[in-house]
Amino acid sequence: MLAPNPRVVFAKRPGTGLPVPGEHLVYDATRSIDLDAVPLNGGFLTKTLMLSPEPFLRERMRDLSVDSYSTHAVVGAPMVGFVLAVVLRSEKEGVNPGDHMYGLSHWEAYTVQPYMEGRVDFKAGNYPDWTGDTDSLIKLNAVPDPQGKYPWSSYFSVLGGPGLTAFCGLEAYGNAKKGETIYISSGASGVGSVLIQLAKEKGLRVIASAGSDAKVEYMRSLGADVAFNYKTTPVAAALKEHGPLDIYWDNVGGETVEAAIQYSRLHARFIMCGSISEYNLAPEACYGIKNLSLVFKKQLRIYGLLVGEHMTSLGPRFFTEVPALMAQGRLTVRETFTEGLENAADAFVKMLQAGGAEELGKPVVIVAKE
Amino acid sequence: MLAPNPRVVFAKRPGTGLPVPGEHLVYDATRSIDLDAVPLNGGFLTKTLMLSPEPFLRERMRDLSVDSYSTHAVVGAPMVGFVLAVVLRSEKEGVNPGDHMYGLSHWEAYTVQPYMEGRVDFKAGNYPDWTGDTDSLIKLNAVPDPQGKYPWSSYFSVLGGPGLTAFCGLEAYGNAKKGETIYISSGASGVGSVLIQLAKEKGLRVIASAGSDAKVEYMRSLGADVAFNYKTTPVAAALKEHGPLDIYWDNVGGETVEAAIQYSRLHARFIMCGSISEYNLAPEACYGIKNLSLVFKKQLRIYGLLVGEHMTSLGPRFFTEVPALMAQGRLTVRETFTEGLENAADAFVKMLQAGGAEELGKPVVIVAKE
Repeated sequence: MLAPNPRVVFAKRPGTGLPVPGEHLVYDATRSIDLDAVPLNGGFLTKTLMLSPEPFLRERMRDLSVDSYSTHAVVGAPMVGFVLAVVLRSEKEGVNPGDHMYGLSHWEAYTVQPYMEGRVDFKAGNYPDWTGDTDSLIKLNAVPDPQGKYPWSSYFSVLGGPGLTAFCGLEAYGNAKKGETIYISSGASGVGSVLIQLAKEKGLRVIASAGSDAKVEYMRSLGADVAFNYKTTPVAAALKEHGPLDIYWDNVGGETVEAAIQYSRLHARFIMCGSISEYNLAPEACYGIKNLSLVFKKQLRIYGLLVGEHMTSLGPRFFTEVPALMAQGRLTVRETFTEGLENAADAFVKMLQAGGAEELGKPVVIVAKE
Repeated sequence: MLAPNPRVVFAKRPGTGLPVPGEHLVYDATRSIDLDAVPLNGGFLTKTLMLSPEPFLRERMRDLSVDSYSTHAVVGAPMVGFVLAVVLRSEKEGVNPGDHMYGLSHWEAYTVQPYMEGRVDFKAGNYPDWTGDTDSLIKLNAVPDPQGKYPWSSYFSVLGGPGLTAFCGLEAYGNAKKGETIYISSGASGVGSVLIQLAKEKGLRVIASAGSDAKVEYMRSLGADVAFNYKTTPVAAALKEHGPLDIYWDNVGGETVEAAIQYSRLHARFIMCGSISEYNLAPEACYGIKNLSLVFKKQLRIYGLLVGEHMTSLGPRFFTEVPALMAQGRLTVRETFTEGLENAADAFVKMLQAGGAEELGKPVVIVAKE
């Protein structure tokens, strides 16, 4: 059976601005695939059900001259990100038709796995603790059927990268003690929304910020004790009133970090997870942080977090504890669904416009029904 | 016997500039003391032999509105800093005439101990690991006679605060592995000069910077593999050529930190020990660091160091290992001596002028012969 096999191609590097759908990310509907006859070469054929627009995809689009923790996205190859897919045919032992798989794959309707074109790679040097199968970071893994206890799309939020990131960062570096105060920037984001709930589970007092009043309400509904809109309340003013902080979780970078340093307590822990305010800026246009001397005066600890290096040590606990919390209804997630692969680039760009999107919750693109 | 008892008084807060001798620090030669009859009230009388101008003294002069790790210096009281003193008379059990003592005391010729006026205090909250006698941080402690193996003034450098700081910081946070590269700013300073030698003992490759060619030669003589004058070679250029860094030791703050972040390796450790480039600046005049997003991209670890919190865990090793290295001639120190309490304020201000002083080595003020 010949089926259309549309994809989203990374057509051009966006430089320092936001990527533009149709220019940097191009929807290509010209391709097709023979689902019954396409050679599998010992692999398997997947149908993409959902995909997950996430900030780290922007990082991969950077100029070739800029080094970072991930390889560069390949111009001309399809976009690669986290997807949920179902297996249609398989020649690989242990992989069976009907299996649901989560992991990195192409933004396209059907893919012969393992995919190679435009392949993501995280540099080996980033994962000194990784003693298992390095490949499992960059390929699809079978995931259990939630059997109605939570939606399949949870694998993009609580049970996927964002949830893992929140869990591992807080466990590895938070040193959280009941009654302490954590401030979470981008509290309505994929990572932030899980983190608010995990922090409350630990008995922390939670301050959270986002860029719209609707998101403020959402963060309150997740349990934030103090939630504010950074567009109408300066971060420094909010932290002066509601701080000082024992833990700061950074998703945004820049001026917000400076305010958090200013209003942190002695021995506060900083977990640096992202800098969404700066992904689309040239280095010289980034905000200059002037109070770093407080790091020694307050004996702060600042930790750069990439979730991969904690997979071995904390992954097993995550996959035990978090599904249990979900089944008990103690972890919830709100999602914003976009229908159609042709709208994936738009959903991605909207997610990158920090605070710009009025939609709440984790963006998920529905590519196909089962 | 009535003796003159001159002192240096902290007369006025210097605001954001350098303190000016005669204005902010006033030499007061009007006082005298009866060495035989002055009441000891169960304490003891010391004669100050030497005192140590150190950067943290500037920190205590800050405006009352600015919080920090130490209490504020008291206007009208004598300056307080690390001194070496000899006991003249004692009513305290265990303290005997002729004992040599090192610790915090007044910048004056003779003092009845324990002194109270203008007392230094480090905030208890800063020392969660401190299980011993908190008082011992703020009073004099007897120190052994080096018996000619090294000079008494070593208690201000290798065997005192600077040596302890270098040892504890490197042990607690360096995670140093043979063959790795460390960059030490202010490498000719009290802390820096000890650190270069301790780093070489660990098999590290050492890059060090200071503000004069004479200091560059001095750092080479201490073992630095690469030494440069930051006034003629931009830090970023030097680190680009000789990096990347596995460990950065910050004594200066500002632009140097930005360069170190830029040229650090994945998983590099930053030990933040001081910001001498900024002690005399208003907060808004400090350099803005724009590349903090590299902290998560490179998974850096940044640690604010105050030596006090490591005393319990690392103090015993320090007092065993470092004197042994000294006795073997594997740790050396160069000192710059200033004669006379009346010149102490000048020596202090000269030390604060980062890179300005051409003198090499740890400044020591000789107050009196024994």
